[in-house]
Amino acid sequence: MTSDHSQHSAFDVYDTTLRDGAQQEGMNLSVADKLAIAPLLDELGVGFIEGGWPGAIPKDTEFFARAAKELHLTNAVLAAFGATRKAGVKAVDDPQVRALLDAQTPVVTLVAKTDIRHVERALRTTAAENLAMITDTVSLLVGEGRRVVLDAEHFFDGYRYDPGYALEAILAAFGSGAEVVTLCDTNGGMLPDGVAQIVGEVQAAVGHGPRLGMHAHNDSGCAVANTLAAVGAGAGHVQGTVNGYGERTGNADLIAVVANLEIKQGRNLLVGSGGLREATRIAHAISEITNISPFARQPYIGASAFAHKAGLHASAIRVDPDLYQHIDPIRVGNDMRMLISDMAGRASIELKGRELGIDLAGQSELLGRVMNRIKDAEAQGYTYDAADASFELLLREEVDGERLAFFDVESWRVIVETLPGTLDHANAEATVKLTAGGTRTVATGEGNGPVNALDHALRQALVTTYPEIERLELIDFKVRIMDTMHGTDAVTRVLVETMDSGAETTWRTVGVGPNVIEASFEAIVDSIVYGLLRAGVARR
Amino acid sequence: MTSDHSQHSAFDVYDTTLRDGAQQEGMNLSVADKLAIAPLLDELGVGFIEGGWPGAIPKDTEFFARAAKELHLTNAVLAAFGATRKAGVKAVDDPQVRALLDAQTPVVTLVAKTDIRHVERALRTTAAENLAMITDTVSLLVGEGRRVVLDAEHFFDGYRYDPGYALEAILAAFGSGAEVVTLCDTNGGMLPDGVAQIVGEVQAAVGHGPRLGMHAHNDSGCAVANTLAAVGAGAGHVQGTVNGYGERTGNADLIAVVANLEIKQGRNLLVGSGGLREATRIAHAISEITNISPFARQPYIGASAFAHKAGLHASAIRVDPDLYQHIDPIRVGNDMRMLISDMAGRASIELKGRELGIDLAGQSELLGRVMNRIKDAEAQGYTYDAADASFELLLREEVDGERLAFFDVESWRVIVETLPGTLDHANAEATVKLTAGGTRTVATGEGNGPVNALDHALRQALVTTYPEIERLELIDFKVRIMDTMHGTDAVTRVLVETMDSGAETTWRTVGVGPNVIEASFEAIVDSIVYGLLRAGVARR
Repeated sequence: MTSDHSQHSAFDVYDTTLRDGAQQEGMNLSVADKLAIAPLLDELGVGFIEGGWPGAIPKDTEFFARAAKELHLTNAVLAAFGATRKAGVKAVDDPQVRALLDAQTPVVTLVAKTDIRHVERALRTTAAENLAMITDTVSLLVGEGRRVVLDAEHFFDGYRYDPGYALEAILAAFGSGAEVVTLCDTNGGMLPDGVAQIVGEVQAAVGHGPRLGMHAHNDSGCAVANTLAAVGAGAGHVQGTVNGYGERTGNADLIAVVANLEIKQGRNLLVGSGGLREATRIAHAISEITNISPFARQPYIGASAFAHKAGLHASAIRVDPDLYQHIDPIRVGNDMRMLISDMAGRASIELKGRELGIDLAGQSELLGRVMNRIKDAEAQGYTYDAADASFELLLREEVDGERLAFFDVESWRVIVETLPGTLDHANAEATVKLTAGGTRTVATGEGNGPVNALDHALRQALVTTYPEIERLELIDFKVRIMDTMHGTDAVTRVLVETMDSGAETTWRTVGVGPNVIEASFEAIVDSIVYGLLRAGVARR
Repeated sequence: MTSDHSQHSAFDVYDTTLRDGAQQEGMNLSVADKLAIAPLLDELGVGFIEGGWPGAIPKDTEFFARAAKELHLTNAVLAAFGATRKAGVKAVDDPQVRALLDAQTPVVTLVAKTDIRHVERALRTTAAENLAMITDTVSLLVGEGRRVVLDAEHFFDGYRYDPGYALEAILAAFGSGAEVVTLCDTNGGMLPDGVAQIVGEVQAAVGHGPRLGMHAHNDSGCAVANTLAAVGAGAGHVQGTVNGYGERTGNADLIAVVANLEIKQGRNLLVGSGGLREATRIAHAISEITNISPFARQPYIGASAFAHKAGLHASAIRVDPDLYQHIDPIRVGNDMRMLISDMAGRASIELKGRELGIDLAGQSELLGRVMNRIKDAEAQGYTYDAADASFELLLREEVDGERLAFFDVESWRVIVETLPGTLDHANAEATVKLTAGGTRTVATGEGNGPVNALDHALRQALVTTYPEIERLELIDFKVRIMDTMHGTDAVTRVLVETMDSGAETTWRTVGVGPNVIEASFEAIVDSIVYGLLRAGVARR
């Protein structure tokens, strides 16, 4: 089922995406989802995958049962998460502890109280009993051949309140055979200097043999930095989640932590061969499974992480990418992108042209014309940094002297009306009249809204001449009303994302108009034109 | 136009949302947007608002011109951003520098090269000329009565490569009268320990009089921590953006920085009275204007920042919120939310009801019904924290047992079609059939789009029975497509802001539907109903 680490590694990268990460608002992972995510985490090269809380969460009991048969991990070992035994109950008699054993994982991670206030007010037991809970549960699991990680919940708050007790608790864990004690900033309120101080003191108190871990939350915006501070103070085990998923503000972004430690501090932490180079792909694949929109500005792996906009930089970035990027994006599997905007200069347009296979070197007059068109268009509301395909069509139009077209639209009409007898539903219908391949067609499409109907009508009108249209799928549609001072008399901008399911490529186009329908029509037409261009179709 | 700080403050909170923040991919702020955001920043209590780059960006030249007449800031001073003079040109002859003066701001912030590699390869000039560029430009501006901030671009990278030159450059700035030199981690690659080290060394080198600032980017996931590290090492000026907007991974999240420094380190940094308590509302209001979806997991002000899910905590959090939260959310204007238990939910509805003059105390069954309606509605895409008027109508409906109505709509229809002979323009026309004051009316309205036409038709149909309608003006209209995984088959949410020009009040209503037209209709009807309710009009 899992790999066997007879030699424990020098440094633990411990992933809790499937357990702590799953507590994020809006996340609802099925067992199948977890079984799909685990191999991706394994591919990344984390050393530990915490799969869930068997016994307490029925789906997790099922996950571990199925994982035993279906998961074949190469780099990581599986960990079952749970808690120390209940107060007043023997470890061996506690069903929750039994469930941890039944999960049959090489590693078991126990959350334990180390803050005396939590022991007294939340658990309602005594200081001594809590220590016994730790000792008994850890000993039992170690005796059953499990590697034990102890997560010291609310550790930093507890240590600041009563350091003596907090240390007693973790020494009890080490004394019973725990391999790692993870210091958890459960409320996320620590700042890096405080973490460094405390971890340093604790490491000195426990001696340099026992391994300390760090588990940070991002409530102060410092989860990654807190984790680095702990490592700097001696911790040899870091916990986090992919994409920083987690309750409230989330857990430490594990990929950012690892990238910082590996790339900037030259450490070698991931298991297996160079998983960090796959980080961008893996993080995005996981977001597809969780169905949580990726955060474009996410460090290292975000879509915008290496997207350069300011004209301030673009002129020089051609010469020396290293002058403008903190790392080569390839190291995390990401790409540099030049964003086109009214802040862009000729240099970024030339660079963009080169990305698109259009050589604009030395063509000063042409570059000037393109820049002016972009500035004018952006003043009207167009945005090209989010619409590469529209930019390419504009560029080609300036280069070729005419706009690329595959068909000529004569007119279109959209009708939306409530169904008789109810205001709850409306019909949307669109009619498009156009000429393609020498034939004039009138087509009508229906949809759940005016834009949807127009999209269907247009495709209906084109599919006979251009059967390739069937591969094109409109997958995203964003509306922005410009100039909020004018109510519904505003200019509308629409961004449309389209996919060619044959080629598995996607592109974005933009449309602007006095209302969402006109703006959408423009964006949709361009998306089709671009799709046909990309598919190598000739005008018929 | 702006407040006058004859005594410079002990610590600068410097906001660059409108300049560096505006470089975020997908952000396209109009002049009106900037003029709407600036007062919110002022209300927060930042000391400086960097408005843009006049001269280089035409929209920004316009912004400063209009700001001079239209912006009345209480707490902040306005700063114009630009660059040191061009190499080989006198400062007084450089049109870019002239534009900075023409912006008529009390503060001018200049970006300058302090990394010798950038001087040589990007600017293609000499070390000496670059120093002269700094000296000449700063001197000119100081001579013209401006307070000057110098942003030392790529400072940390430059200092690590050639510390001598980097220091020379910033000493030249201080020597010419710059009030602050901001050390910029332009590529975002620094980690906190490195920042603390370098800022400490630089502060020692320049002496303890001159003020150093910090400008961090989040490429390593450490922007907030880096800013705190700089402050710890002596910096007295922090730059950042609201919501961490900015190029690539963004700038330092200014609210997180300030909250950490004020709440956890007991500093008093914002100008005016307790702006931090309004931070959540302000940050969300700004995101409405930028039309960039707020990030739920954002520290301090995110919708999920204090939303507790884990069964692990929920049972105890009622007893002792402080055991589970790093701060009391009220300090940043946020709320604790329970995602499982409904205890906190009822309390906030009761409080809201009281705000609206509806006494719900002790009405457990009613509160339960309202909570369920809200939960169901929010699952469908409604949002009430941005639509108080819709919430009030919902609450009144549950209290009264029926939905408030002034008229009965029978049906509506919208037609949008291109004008004969051109695709450049489309006609939009809407017809509404309704009964008001006992009379059935069929009215048709025209507009520049379907929603606009529908709005006109509805008013046309009602104005005879309710002449008060003429005072109501739809002033803002925002569209958000929910669930971006489904292209144009998505659910659409519309937020409408309406003003009663007689009473000078505004309110917001929300509508949700399978397309923008149905969603808008709902929001517009509610806005009219609410307006008539507020105006004390009886049903006719």
